[in-house]
Amino acid sequence: MSKEKLVVIGGDAAGMSAASQAKRRRPELAIVVIERSPHTSFSACGIPYYVGRVVDAEEKLIIRTPEKFRELDGIDVRVLHEVEKIDVPGKKVHVRNLKTGRSAWEPYDQLLIATGAVPFCPQLPGADAVDIFGVSTLESGLEIRRRLDKGGIKKAVVVGGGYIGLEMAEALVMNGLEVSLISRPPQVMGTLDDDMGALVSQALRDVGVTLYLEEELTSFKKKAGKVTGIVTDKRTLLTDIVILGLGVRPNTALAAAAGIPLGEKGSIRVNERMETGIAGIWAAGDCAESFHLVSRKPFYVALGTVANRQGRVAGINLGGGYATFPGVVGTAVTKICTMEVARTGLQEKELRKLGIEWVSAVIKSRTKAGYYPDAGEITVKVLAERGSGRLLGGQIVGMEGSAKRIDTLATALHAGFTVEEMINLDLGYAPPFSPVWDPVVIAAREAAKKL
Amino acid sequence: MSKEKLVVIGGDAAGMSAASQAKRRRPELAIVVIERSPHTSFSACGIPYYVGRVVDAEEKLIIRTPEKFRELDGIDVRVLHEVEKIDVPGKKVHVRNLKTGRSAWEPYDQLLIATGAVPFCPQLPGADAVDIFGVSTLESGLEIRRRLDKGGIKKAVVVGGGYIGLEMAEALVMNGLEVSLISRPPQVMGTLDDDMGALVSQALRDVGVTLYLEEELTSFKKKAGKVTGIVTDKRTLLTDIVILGLGVRPNTALAAAAGIPLGEKGSIRVNERMETGIAGIWAAGDCAESFHLVSRKPFYVALGTVANRQGRVAGINLGGGYATFPGVVGTAVTKICTMEVARTGLQEKELRKLGIEWVSAVIKSRTKAGYYPDAGEITVKVLAERGSGRLLGGQIVGMEGSAKRIDTLATALHAGFTVEEMINLDLGYAPPFSPVWDPVVIAAREAAKKL
Repeated sequence: MSKEKLVVIGGDAAGMSAASQAKRRRPELAIVVIERSPHTSFSACGIPYYVGRVVDAEEKLIIRTPEKFRELDGIDVRVLHEVEKIDVPGKKVHVRNLKTGRSAWEPYDQLLIATGAVPFCPQLPGADAVDIFGVSTLESGLEIRRRLDKGGIKKAVVVGGGYIGLEMAEALVMNGLEVSLISRPPQVMGTLDDDMGALVSQALRDVGVTLYLEEELTSFKKKAGKVTGIVTDKRTLLTDIVILGLGVRPNTALAAAAGIPLGEKGSIRVNERMETGIAGIWAAGDCAESFHLVSRKPFYVALGTVANRQGRVAGINLGGGYATFPGVVGTAVTKICTMEVARTGLQEKELRKLGIEWVSAVIKSRTKAGYYPDAGEITVKVLAERGSGRLLGGQIVGMEGSAKRIDTLATALHAGFTVEEMINLDLGYAPPFSPVWDPVVIAAREAAKKL
Repeated sequence: MSKEKLVVIGGDAAGMSAASQAKRRRPELAIVVIERSPHTSFSACGIPYYVGRVVDAEEKLIIRTPEKFRELDGIDVRVLHEVEKIDVPGKKVHVRNLKTGRSAWEPYDQLLIATGAVPFCPQLPGADAVDIFGVSTLESGLEIRRRLDKGGIKKAVVVGGGYIGLEMAEALVMNGLEVSLISRPPQVMGTLDDDMGALVSQALRDVGVTLYLEEELTSFKKKAGKVTGIVTDKRTLLTDIVILGLGVRPNTALAAAAGIPLGEKGSIRVNERMETGIAGIWAAGDCAESFHLVSRKPFYVALGTVANRQGRVAGINLGGGYATFPGVVGTAVTKICTMEVARTGLQEKELRKLGIEWVSAVIKSRTKAGYYPDAGEITVKVLAERGSGRLLGGQIVGMEGSAKRIDTLATALHAGFTVEEMINLDLGYAPPFSPVWDPVVIAAREAAKKL
């Protein structure tokens, strides 16, 4: 009798975490990972820093090669292979070898779908022009840097004011380019409330990025197949390169075609153990649904941290153990040169949609004791439920030492603390690290006054 | 009928926080603050940085002067006045004016004792010599720096390896002195377990401090009234100046003489509202008892953060409101040049004493993504209750960006999380701030494996 076999579709964070966990717990399990690209386990979040030349060599972004997975873990990783179809009743997947073009059926006992996400690409006139780049695969990052190295690029347009858009704008500034950024909302960083987003918009202007806010991309201009400009509802901008940072959507066409139930934003619906509800089929990472612990509703998020956690949980369960992924609180951090940005929980527009009433406080403080040298400014916003005082979310914009303070708010959200309870949190204080009252606690205290 | 009167003994963090809170809530309340020193509300924690010339001017350590309290809050602050006796049945305190030497009775309706702590001064031969300094009042900090400025100081001995000892040792190194540090335990920083403390001992040696561990001070050598050396059970060291960092004890002689019940380490016993149990008498700050939320036992701690919180709670209650101080989890952070140190919860020797069984994990990771420039080393130790997995404590030693990660562990302790629950905490991740798995979560994950 042949060994039980796990097939994993997708060899990045979720897929490889799961494969490693499962193999460690059940060494007798045969594991085949099918990966479309030439790479496994790379840091997508590192791409902007590679393009911005903060990280010098592309190898550094690769956490582990397919060869290492084969050697160290005994996992059969097949890169440049693509799954074209899942046959659910037959328990097999149709796999094409992208080098030879040949394809064959691969049977499975358990199947993990970890197909990740794909960048939104607007279907606009001229979108097929050369030198328009999305940022998702390691390949796309390498291509952008190769294109910059080739020369002839002076002006860049970034479309989208989210994390990727902002980080890429900074990376292009660091390449000496003249950078414009187009964004539909009134401020960049739509996951912050506008008052906090305005601080980030200003930080971008301060590093030399020209912002065109509340503008919508309508088409691309091209010449001899190459992009030469973009057109919005208000203007035309000439450019040598366009970077699309319009967010991602779950890559679930394969799962949908196989009849696997989808949920929030088209992501694969899973339970806390990462099971899809179809016997023997699991999902994890950017293609899978999550759960928001503050709104208590299904939620879609594409982040490496979540992908790793979901992959770990799927792997433990596939390896015969028991683990659950309870959900997320919506934490994210980023950096625009010296300005750090962080958010967690729900923002005002989400609260409005959910019908939750809230109070909020915005405070300015310092990252260190006021008299300590280089004490940088930090702005903290805290949102709490009206009446109950339950912490609902927090946003931070400030200098070095600001962003990771979001972890205190995130942990408090997991705990379900009220802002009143947060006042007495016993946080670390010494003059080089904080004022006596930590800025996040000052914000909680001010919010508590308004309940 | 005259206004109701609150008398506060002690005009530092706890006393002035309470006075301001009470006045804000009940403007009609008459408030008299009696303070022995010439100063109110200074940052004791800032003294080492003033001595080390990181902070240039002494005025910066004064958060608010007596004049400001009088002008802005209408609080009658009497500096250079000392309470000599509390007459509990008569509801009055005997106050001496230290400038004129005259004294008089001051009646009160409510009394808040915020007399702080005093440094341990060993009653050893030669302890009365000149140039032996404790570090507690702002005056003592100013004196040390004046003494250094006067010149003729080349060698220094610091006695004690706690926060003050370590910070003062660094400050003296920054003054170009040859510094030795004597400590009785096997490693400095006795609030860390020895394996973690050893990293701090090494950091001190790396900045040029000579350590004499497991040695006990037995006497001071002096010549013409001035200190010239110290003697331990193992050697004699010549020195020009001695700094005592042997910890503090609650300053409660006055309260004890009045029959107010004392608790842990002689601190004033209080309930969660900061009442002493004697009608109309309250206590807050370094003279008052606290409660340890992890050991669930009374606990004594002398820290500015706790003093501010207790003072706030006392002030709200004195002002007619309702607030409670539930207790602490034992968090503290410090820094030895570039090395950051943090701890929270219970350490092994406390667990042993309490009869709590535990598992622990020590992990090494990086403060940023491994491929990101200047990703510094960070070592995290996590302790969890055997069986239940309840988080019991954490210790961190590492480069920039390490110490404030303790806040996540501290918040998790407040929440009563298990290490298993900590694995799925949704913490902030981006390459400039953290590896995908935050180091504190890696440590929790490793501890969970040993349960």
